[in-house]
Amino acid sequence: MLKKNINIGIVGLGQIGGRLYKEILSKKNDIEIKTEKKVNIIAISAKNYKKRRSFKFSKKIFYKNPLDIAKNPHVDILFELIGHPNGISKKVVEIALKNKKHVITANKALMAKNGDYLSLVAEKNRVNLEFEAAVGGGIPILRTIKDGLATNKINKVVGILNGTCNYILSEMHSLKDSFRNVLKRAQSLGYAEISNPKFDLNGNDTLSKVRILSALAFNKKISTNKCLMDGIEDIELEDMAIADKLNFKIKLLGITEIINNKLFERVHPCLIKKDTYIANINGVMNAVILEGEPVGESVLQGEGAGPGPTSSALMSDLLSILRGNIKYPFGLPNNKRKRISSYDQKLYVNSFYLRIQVKDKHGVLSSITKTFTKNKISIKNLIQNPDKKNKKSNIIIITHENLEKNFINLLRSLKQNKFLLKKPTFIRIEKI
Amino acid sequence: MLKKNINIGIVGLGQIGGRLYKEILSKKNDIEIKTEKKVNIIAISAKNYKKRRSFKFSKKIFYKNPLDIAKNPHVDILFELIGHPNGISKKVVEIALKNKKHVITANKALMAKNGDYLSLVAEKNRVNLEFEAAVGGGIPILRTIKDGLATNKINKVVGILNGTCNYILSEMHSLKDSFRNVLKRAQSLGYAEISNPKFDLNGNDTLSKVRILSALAFNKKISTNKCLMDGIEDIELEDMAIADKLNFKIKLLGITEIINNKLFERVHPCLIKKDTYIANINGVMNAVILEGEPVGESVLQGEGAGPGPTSSALMSDLLSILRGNIKYPFGLPNNKRKRISSYDQKLYVNSFYLRIQVKDKHGVLSSITKTFTKNKISIKNLIQNPDKKNKKSNIIIITHENLEKNFINLLRSLKQNKFLLKKPTFIRIEKI
Repeated sequence: MLKKNINIGIVGLGQIGGRLYKEILSKKNDIEIKTEKKVNIIAISAKNYKKRRSFKFSKKIFYKNPLDIAKNPHVDILFELIGHPNGISKKVVEIALKNKKHVITANKALMAKNGDYLSLVAEKNRVNLEFEAAVGGGIPILRTIKDGLATNKINKVVGILNGTCNYILSEMHSLKDSFRNVLKRAQSLGYAEISNPKFDLNGNDTLSKVRILSALAFNKKISTNKCLMDGIEDIELEDMAIADKLNFKIKLLGITEIINNKLFERVHPCLIKKDTYIANINGVMNAVILEGEPVGESVLQGEGAGPGPTSSALMSDLLSILRGNIKYPFGLPNNKRKRISSYDQKLYVNSFYLRIQVKDKHGVLSSITKTFTKNKISIKNLIQNPDKKNKKSNIIIITHENLEKNFINLLRSLKQNKFLLKKPTFIRIEKI
Repeated sequence: MLKKNINIGIVGLGQIGGRLYKEILSKKNDIEIKTEKKVNIIAISAKNYKKRRSFKFSKKIFYKNPLDIAKNPHVDILFELIGHPNGISKKVVEIALKNKKHVITANKALMAKNGDYLSLVAEKNRVNLEFEAAVGGGIPILRTIKDGLATNKINKVVGILNGTCNYILSEMHSLKDSFRNVLKRAQSLGYAEISNPKFDLNGNDTLSKVRILSALAFNKKISTNKCLMDGIEDIELEDMAIADKLNFKIKLLGITEIINNKLFERVHPCLIKKDTYIANINGVMNAVILEGEPVGESVLQGEGAGPGPTSSALMSDLLSILRGNIKYPFGLPNNKRKRISSYDQKLYVNSFYLRIQVKDKHGVLSSITKTFTKNKISIKNLIQNPDKKNKKSNIIIITHENLEKNFINLLRSLKQNKFLLKKPTFIRIEKI
């Protein structure tokens, strides 16, 4: 990066791309002061040229085919903001890297799936592949792990990593409103996708971020292990109310840790004591807690999504490249990052919250508790809420700690119980 | 930094220096993997050669005069860990930079006083001057401002920046123990200096950190303005108990912000609502809250002091240099960092808590309230706690918002009140 004028291409001009475009133009001076480089956006590409946008651009810099930007010899740095896990996103990034362009992406799905391959391509071509915006929105968590906490031995990372889910759970809790209503509101506010919110709600989005965090925190290859992944779709207002009474909040957490040299990654809703730090991260905020040696516990918190925080992260990647910080995408050479095998999740020890909806009939309770005994799971608390009018009853159970394996068997047995009205809701209780 | 073998000198082998020495030796492999450099500690210096230490070193690498390390042509990177604001610390850093060595320091007092000059020397000699460990211990806050949030327009930074003070205030609150007792415990645990804890307790240490944060966050020269600075020495257990009843906690905050293009830096104890994030940072933890555009609010929290967190920060500086990230110490060239004039603190609008110890005599209350009226300060709450036995009384007052100017006049008038038994305790109420 010895030359003074640096040319930028942006592929994808949605909410994020649009905000970035304006941000770069408005910060040109600031960028030049901090890096001694003049930046120019010389190529942009979007699905729809004619879409109404809050900014103008010259027709001359618009490319119909994003691959033409990836190959354009005048482009030095390319932003990939399309967001597919494979397909055109992968192609654009791959070709740009092979053409010795630095690439900046906000695409967690792409990085979680193809990050190892793409970082190798970047390494071979001696260019940067930066992806700060892929995890934690405005929180500079990847940079903190790679630089700020470099050489720390990190043992565990716990995070609220999906703003949509956290917004929904927070609103359900504070407004005592249903999942469905809050989801609708989240969609109208732009916090949740309208056509297909599933990727956020089922834990998949969080899992992509967890996989990226594991690779960085533990200096390993990105895991492709099968993972414990549950979403928040089954959580009902009733669970919120019960959790509240029991002094818990419900949060969707992404957790990754090394146990006996094995990697244990998981994403699931958790019951967490109300007075903990992580229980009080509300709305679209994200937070990450790291445990490292020698630093101790580090916490980072910030806005997790949206054009503002995301463009802050993209700009930090841009400045890193302009300052000439050529780095390995995952902090060390690809061949030094080893695979790590998966911790057997069946050995995970935890206690559980279960809400079991049954017919309000004689013998139900003994039938249910018998199933627990048969699966070697002992009950700590049991609350029965009969709904005589509708001839049904809610049995709420907090268990003692037990192996995940036994819980899986328990759930399987419960499903066969003749009194059961619907699939039980179960939430793991997390001690944080 | 093209050569493979990098030689390190460490000046100062106290708790921090000792831990760093061991940390570098134990992480040599990790450093080589991440940076492709082999590091060797070839020179160390300490006041006392014979002091008992938890590690061994060869006599050959020991220098009596630290300036010989600063001048040693074989040393590439020098750590300054003596900790004086001027004198030998300044000399060692200056000479090392002039001899084209990169310098890493944990010395906030040095940076707050001489940071502008030393960063200019570094810039001229094209070497790095890194000081992550000077602020926030293990929290990579400086790196986050320079890199992670680069190009954000930061408007305000609020922090708990002194672990000693936060430990004392937390312990006074939770154990209902006196300032004096808790200070003794802090000293025995190594959280407070034994010979002279004043620099921590009177706010001076926090102010040094605030000055460094201002310069970085707002891209300005380090301010030498006269500052609003109060310490925690006057806070008594009684204030803790009253604050608790009023739903407040007492915290020592460092705050810097830009108001109407002027810089307003301040350090003082604050009453903060119990349910806020910052009120719940306890013990030796530090925390920093940044408000930036476009990122929104960012929070970083971590251990604020001690050899572990400090050596984590020092190591991150080392890796940054080894990776070849040659940067301006304050993120941009010295001549682009302008001076900024000081906000007139008399215009600061705030409400106050006051505890006024008076003789328990007829007419006291009307005499005190009259002084408030005369100074145009209106009272929101007033609590009177008479202590008949000792013929004294505590008058606790929460005021409405008013100008700092009027409070200063009020305090001056109160001191002349004939009923007064001692200087009133006053604490600003901070809305965060």
